[in-house]
Amino acid sequence: MKNTEEFSIEETLTALRKKIDAVDEKIVASLAERQQVVDQVVALKKAHNLPVYHPAREEDLISKRRQQGAASDLDPDFIEDLYRTIIRRSRVEQASRMAMKSVRPGAVVLMVGGEGRLGRYFSNTFSEAGYSVRILDRNDWPEVGRLCRGIDLAVLSVPIDRTAEIARRLAPYLPPEAVLADLTSLKAEPLQAMLDAHPGPVIGLHPLFGPTTASLDKQIIVATPGRDSSACRWLLDQFSTWGSIIVTADAEEHDEIMDIVQALRHFATFAFGRFLSQKQIQLSRTLEFSSPIYRLELGMVGRLFAQDPSLYREIILASPQRRALLKDYIASMNENLAMIESDDKERFQAEFKKIAAWFGAFSDQALRESSYLINKLIERF
Amino acid sequence: MKNTEEFSIEETLTALRKKIDAVDEKIVASLAERQQVVDQVVALKKAHNLPVYHPAREEDLISKRRQQGAASDLDPDFIEDLYRTIIRRSRVEQASRMAMKSVRPGAVVLMVGGEGRLGRYFSNTFSEAGYSVRILDRNDWPEVGRLCRGIDLAVLSVPIDRTAEIARRLAPYLPPEAVLADLTSLKAEPLQAMLDAHPGPVIGLHPLFGPTTASLDKQIIVATPGRDSSACRWLLDQFSTWGSIIVTADAEEHDEIMDIVQALRHFATFAFGRFLSQKQIQLSRTLEFSSPIYRLELGMVGRLFAQDPSLYREIILASPQRRALLKDYIASMNENLAMIESDDKERFQAEFKKIAAWFGAFSDQALRESSYLINKLIERF
Repeated sequence: MKNTEEFSIEETLTALRKKIDAVDEKIVASLAERQQVVDQVVALKKAHNLPVYHPAREEDLISKRRQQGAASDLDPDFIEDLYRTIIRRSRVEQASRMAMKSVRPGAVVLMVGGEGRLGRYFSNTFSEAGYSVRILDRNDWPEVGRLCRGIDLAVLSVPIDRTAEIARRLAPYLPPEAVLADLTSLKAEPLQAMLDAHPGPVIGLHPLFGPTTASLDKQIIVATPGRDSSACRWLLDQFSTWGSIIVTADAEEHDEIMDIVQALRHFATFAFGRFLSQKQIQLSRTLEFSSPIYRLELGMVGRLFAQDPSLYREIILASPQRRALLKDYIASMNENLAMIESDDKERFQAEFKKIAAWFGAFSDQALRESSYLINKLIERF
Repeated sequence: MKNTEEFSIEETLTALRKKIDAVDEKIVASLAERQQVVDQVVALKKAHNLPVYHPAREEDLISKRRQQGAASDLDPDFIEDLYRTIIRRSRVEQASRMAMKSVRPGAVVLMVGGEGRLGRYFSNTFSEAGYSVRILDRNDWPEVGRLCRGIDLAVLSVPIDRTAEIARRLAPYLPPEAVLADLTSLKAEPLQAMLDAHPGPVIGLHPLFGPTTASLDKQIIVATPGRDSSACRWLLDQFSTWGSIIVTADAEEHDEIMDIVQALRHFATFAFGRFLSQKQIQLSRTLEFSSPIYRLELGMVGRLFAQDPSLYREIILASPQRRALLKDYIASMNENLAMIESDDKERFQAEFKKIAAWFGAFSDQALRESSYLINKLIERF
């Protein structure tokens, strides 16, 4: 390259940008080459039924690239960030191709409530994996006998408040060796109803994701064993093959945790959104004035209201225990009133410190994780 | 490569992994090469005082790579995702080198409260850019006359409830042409106090980020003009050079928006964290059972408590208007009680739909943005 002074600044800049474009072209070509080798790995794994996710290999790969980056004056965290994106991409693609593989080829699955959003999602997933899928929706009950004949699995994908009743209605038609499972977000009562109704293998499932999830990769499914776990094993293996993580718990513990994780959290979000709408806040103007963290927090509220009202209605008001917890939450909220009315800064600070001590190390982890995401938000939007 | 049947599966897999490693080595080498060209661009821009951020060039670059990706059977969104990370990296590095460049070389900046976290952050930033920075902290008042001599800018980085008083105390020592600015998160009262105390140029600033921010890139600073905007111009130009986005508003509008964006949001988070601690919820166990979205939401709560209690105390209880808003919020929360007690699902669903209609298109955008971030969270943690 000639000396910059022989050119105008704009010409020099253009020449440098062309150089960057040339390097970028090489990078994307290498990514395509990489994809082709990954495709060969997938074909091999699929042929031999090997697992997609191989954490040790991923960490080894990242650590090599970090070292190379550091040696070339690149920030290792930046390289790791890029490679996490590349690896996950490759893992999701592997999983989606592996999905064609059924752990129980030829098995027949009956999806009860298969025309709801979640039911459709799982019907499609089972179908794509090569299962024979039948649908039993509200108008199909006259056909229940035929639909249940010879099935290996019946999955109830129906509203919480109807799960027990539908289990009782379905059970007389099930083959005794068929697995009966549900996808309800509450477990104690539905599991008991399934156990009472069906003498064969029973398992409660709660997928912690919605029908808008692009892939099952690393998504959690809680399994609450009912009866004859070994006969239910293949079903859990199938979810693992699709990339899901199975967490096992008893139904009571599951429900107690979900009171917090789902009902309380969603109710708090609902109540916050309700107040914003009551006050007629101009969301778009507030967003112009807002840090990425507010944008993210407001996004969490807005996100709720883009989803199915009846789903949240069922989750939030699901049980007397849940409703009692929400009443406690409102009572606790009222305890702040005196502090606000008297502008009691000392008390606020004392409370804050007490709560911070209770959160402990989790706070720092949360600050680190959310700061990472905020950077992603700045990059992208 | 020989036919796979001549080797064991493990050997074939190892050979394919070596191929992937070789491609990855090329990719990281190309990234290092790219960095070197970017360094030349930075040197040129710096020498000629050209802006770092060039949106049209960025979009053009991404669109070329998307096309190349699509032609090579790679998902264009995946390629865009990688390039957003690469470009931002390059922009942040450019900005950090450009930061050495002062838009007003040799100017003297007095940081009042320079030993607080935010004060230290801005002191360092101004120093690194080549400004001469002086600190006036609580023990330095006997030296105030000497410290103010010949300064071009005084920045108040002190608690909200002390800003007015400190402006009055400092003003008699300021050169008449010096710019007086503050960094307080409330603007109406501090701005008026600065205007009353100092007859020269005055501007209120509210940086919408904390001292843990890695870079000023795309971070918002709200500017509320006070007096003699043209004399304050260089200061806003300096923040722009550092990559910040300046949003201008009058002080009253700013404060009203911050009642929502800061006080209400932080109070809701505080009250939620308080309830979790009252109920002694086992956070780590709930996290095992949780979708990425809960992890993110709980992270938003935990994050608050990793930060400075006095900062949140000041923000939440800052003004009588704010405290009135929080009382309204608690009152609105109580309106849900009857619905919960009577398990009124009809009413919940009707309310939900009304609020969803009010959120309108924002909900879908929020769902899209947060889904992107949830994927990032799954990739990374």
